[in-house]
Amino acid sequence: MEITFLGTSSGVPTRARNVSSVALRLPQRAEVWLFDCGEGTQHQLLRSDIKTSQLRRIFITHLHGDHIFGLMGLLASCGLAGNAQPVDLYGPPGLKDYIQACSKYSHTHFGNRVQVYTVEPGLVYEDEEFTVTCDLLKHRIPAFGYRIAEKDRTGRFDVEKAKSLGIPPGRIYGQLKKGETVTLTDGRVIRGQDLCGPTEAGRKFAYCTDTVFCETAIELAQGVDVLIHEATFAHQDAELAFDRLHSTSTMAAQVALAAGVNLLIMTHFSPRYAPGNPLDVTNLLQEARAIFPHTKLAYDFFNYEIPRHRSDHLVEVS
Amino acid sequence: MEITFLGTSSGVPTRARNVSSVALRLPQRAEVWLFDCGEGTQHQLLRSDIKTSQLRRIFITHLHGDHIFGLMGLLASCGLAGNAQPVDLYGPPGLKDYIQACSKYSHTHFGNRVQVYTVEPGLVYEDEEFTVTCDLLKHRIPAFGYRIAEKDRTGRFDVEKAKSLGIPPGRIYGQLKKGETVTLTDGRVIRGQDLCGPTEAGRKFAYCTDTVFCETAIELAQGVDVLIHEATFAHQDAELAFDRLHSTSTMAAQVALAAGVNLLIMTHFSPRYAPGNPLDVTNLLQEARAIFPHTKLAYDFFNYEIPRHRSDHLVEVS
Ligand SMILES: [Zn+2]
Ligand SMILES: [Zn+2]
Repeated sequence: MEITFLGTSSGVPTRARNVSSVALRLPQRAEVWLFDCGEGTQHQLLRSDIKTSQLRRIFITHLHGDHIFGLMGLLASCGLAGNAQPVDLYGPPGLKDYIQACSKYSHTHFGNRVQVYTVEPGLVYEDEEFTVTCDLLKHRIPAFGYRIAEKDRTGRFDVEKAKSLGIPPGRIYGQLKKGETVTLTDGRVIRGQDLCGPTEAGRKFAYCTDTVFCETAIELAQGVDVLIHEATFAHQDAELAFDRLHSTSTMAAQVALAAGVNLLIMTHFSPRYAPGNPLDVTNLLQEARAIFPHTKLAYDFFNYEIPRHRSDHLVEVS
Repeated sequence: MEITFLGTSSGVPTRARNVSSVALRLPQRAEVWLFDCGEGTQHQLLRSDIKTSQLRRIFITHLHGDHIFGLMGLLASCGLAGNAQPVDLYGPPGLKDYIQACSKYSHTHFGNRVQVYTVEPGLVYEDEEFTVTCDLLKHRIPAFGYRIAEKDRTGRFDVEKAKSLGIPPGRIYGQLKKGETVTLTDGRVIRGQDLCGPTEAGRKFAYCTDTVFCETAIELAQGVDVLIHEATFAHQDAELAFDRLHSTSTMAAQVALAAGVNLLIMTHFSPRYAPGNPLDVTNLLQEARAIFPHTKLAYDFFNYEIPRHRSDHLVEVS
């Protein structure tokens, strides 16, 4: 699980920062998921080492232009590239109508390749490895925060120990690997968990933008490895934040602290904090760290690999 | 009149070329006009020395995504930048509905700042200095080519000569400057054209994309200083061009030749001719020059100032 920021500016692009988009790479299944898709996201993907052909899902927080105006171009380009892979879109009510209207007027026909799902608070997506849930944040229009959770994995099965106990290989190994208890033909009762290493907790991350400080962000971010939270404004501009329902650096840090996250990465910075201005993003970083020390600033193409929760980091789990 | 290419790729952006947009700078009136507005045009403007605050009109050829997906972002950013200047949009039927649908779903409200005009063959726009006309090209959906013509200017009025003839300064000078014939109070008849230098022919350019070879492109381009014509394909890929109703390099050159233009600039190249491929755009250039020698290749940020048609280039006309 590797997070790559493709755009970290709020509202408008600057020379250094594009508008919102975050990629989640899942190398074990050769998939890429996107969170938001501001204008120019396909251009940023071109400039990154992410394979656009692996794009499988796009989660949209809300319908403001700086989070969706790159969707049509990206989806159209994926199609032109002969990428037959379907892309599933998840987002607030209106997203489907927006895509349909744009498709109609621009004569861009996706056929069945693009499906749009309207989300509501709760479970958005689930497969064998992941769950994605969402909840409403507090913005000027409906905006959803997302929580992506990898499922816990049973620890590594100790084949040598099983053999030394004289357990015959085959279907029983599969049961024991899952942690089940098995009675052998000779009457012995074997508990799978005695043959497996410690369960590996799944990794979790939360993506909260756009929003002013809110309780649902704390709930979504509860105990995650990484919280990506917007920090449009500096603390001294809190009035603007309350007015426009965006967050300050200190609000982002308070969410991180209350949710007990491991790492906070702030993004969605107002262009007013570009280098050379009275305040810049390093001031936002200081403000946040005073409340929640383990905070980083996102920048375009910043890459962060969420480490696995293995008890033994030297053992390669195959 | 200065032309700047902001995007020169067809269909999808590449690392080196963005999708279609051409800026026309009119420094004498501090205005910028755009022709087409593919995704990322606002990003290209940021990277150019063009002042987005001077953006006043946008002419759209057709509604394919690579020509319009940058409109919403650009218009929204102009508004956020506190740019109160109105922007007029001209384009095919459907453009207004597209803008309205995008505005609605993305909650982007332009108020009266953005007006959308639906064009039809003929005069699109006129003011004291310019006329813009359009006509239908030959593409898969309705696509308009544009002809932008600066009006002819009366030559420079010779004040010294007027004084030496004893003509009293004042309102009469104004009439003579316009080339009118005036009867003085002493009965003398003075022809304004005798006191004015030669008329300066206005500059003209035509923008023809997307289209296969067609007669209306030749009519629009008749005698222009610069013809910008698409050349999506190389000559050997003519079958693709006829199939998708795009032009080859040789079709662009034939239009330039038949229209008697001064300069042909080709653009809208398929990514299949990017450097490193069996054929690249220099091959397209050779093919075109064999038919019409005064041909150039557009590239992103290529700048071309159309020279004025003054008989005396050393005299500064004030
Ligand atoms: Zn935003
Ligand atoms: Zn095109």
